[in-house]
Amino acid sequence: MFRCSERERALFEAGIKMGTIYHQFVGTPVSSCNVTELERAMERSVMVQPFVESVTVRICLDDRKKEDTYDYLSLTGEMIDAVLRVRIGDISVTAEMRYDRELDYPLMYVSDISS
Amino acid sequence: MFRCSERERALFEAGIKMGTIYHQFVGTPVSSCNVTELERAMERSVMVQPFVESVTVRICLDDRKKEDTYDYLSLTGEMIDAVLRVRIGDISVTAEMRYDRELDYPLMYVSDISS
Amino acid sequence: MFRCSERERALFEAGIKMGTIYHQFVGTPVSSCNVTELERAMERSVMVQPFVESVTVRICLDDRKKEDTYDYLSLTGEMIDAVLRVRIGDISVTAEMRYDRELDYPLMYVSDISS
Amino acid sequence: MFRCSERERALFEAGIKMGTIYHQFVGTPVSSCNVTELERAMERSVMVQPFVESVTVRICLDDRKKEDTYDYLSLTGEMIDAVLRVRIGDISVTAEMRYDRELDYPLMYVSDISS
Repeated sequence: MFRCSERERALFEAGIKMGTIYHQFVGTPVSSCNVTELERAMERSVMVQPFVESVTVRICLDDRKKEDTYDYLSLTGEMIDAVLRVRIGDISVTAEMRYDRELDYPLMYVSDISS
Repeated sequence: MFRCSERERALFEAGIKMGTIYHQFVGTPVSSCNVTELERAMERSVMVQPFVESVTVRICLDDRKKEDTYDYLSLTGEMIDAVLRVRIGDISVTAEMRYDRELDYPLMYVSDISS
Repeated sequence: MFRCSERERALFEAGIKMGTIYHQFVGTPVSSCNVTELERAMERSVMVQPFVESVTVRICLDDRKKEDTYDYLSLTGEMIDAVLRVRIGDISVTAEMRYDRELDYPLMYVSDISS
Repeated sequence: MFRCSERERALFEAGIKMGTIYHQFVGTPVSSCNVTELERAMERSVMVQPFVESVTVRICLDDRKKEDTYDYLSLTGEMIDAVLRVRIGDISVTAEMRYDRELDYPLMYVSDISS
């Protein structure tokens, strides 16, 4: 197997975890009743994956309220704010996911690489 | 739109929620570190859907332990035990999901209909 | 195990498959380039489940086009039109999923029960 | 926003797509009847994401056959073989996902970085 550097591996691993947050949980029913527990469950499920040092997930429900039987939403990428830190050896990579209003896109990006 | 009876609707809705539990969460990283929070998040996300009266989810991790960097599992249907009650009007339908060892299949079935 | 009638079982199974279509595939990247293949794959993956007689899935992408690097969408429930027929013994249940504009909700409902 | 190099971005993006392949599709019902269409749909849905140059997905069903009503499986990470190439500017990153028998883990790794 090809061996990339710890720095390169950390970037790759950070990407994997961003994909996990997005594609595992988008579609989950969410309302003000379960949003906090869903955020915590998303964080904790990422934390059990290799090399994750910390992760915070916030789900933005603002202005999306309905008041009937169907008063909940399906989680979309646009609602997710996430900050993730992956560490391999001496390298720490911070990655973030945020809805970019201009691109109309839930952008994932590397916000810091340090050692 | 065709109108089915409350009894028929309750059976249909119970099925939908079983599909939610399975297909939304299978694949989620899980270990002894996050299993309780994942169970609660699964229950709570089903509870925000219409007509759900109660739901309990248990994830069975026994005998699946590894002791290395990759010491976690991806949730499979075989690990899920769920009991769900849907109520519409006077009708209450209880549905369950359990791994059936003989069929080697995570079976979903209706265990009670009452009114 | 409690035994429900074939009619009741067929309604429950139809619900399960609706949950499968929704929660397995919501979040999938989709654009005009892969929409047809995604529809077929969704149909075929439901067809391998028990008791499914037929299923058609249509994904509505209209008016959602962007023209940049990020020119694709994540599949949402609102985009899905599905018609599913489940048969158990002599009973056939047809269920549908359609975006209900009034409810602002991707409604799943039973549209026919016949024998 | 912090700017990482094209090389670093390509590694991060390759990781995201690996997470997509895994977490979007694990759980999908699959048998010999739909395996080819599911592979193609997985490939095509990754191809619509940014920076993907090529992707091949193979699903390994061997030795997993049953012969009853429940004659299908839910896709697991262990069944997936994937090779993905991401290109940003002059940098091309190849990433792979394969079941590692020794680790008993569906390993994702970078197999080539070239420019």
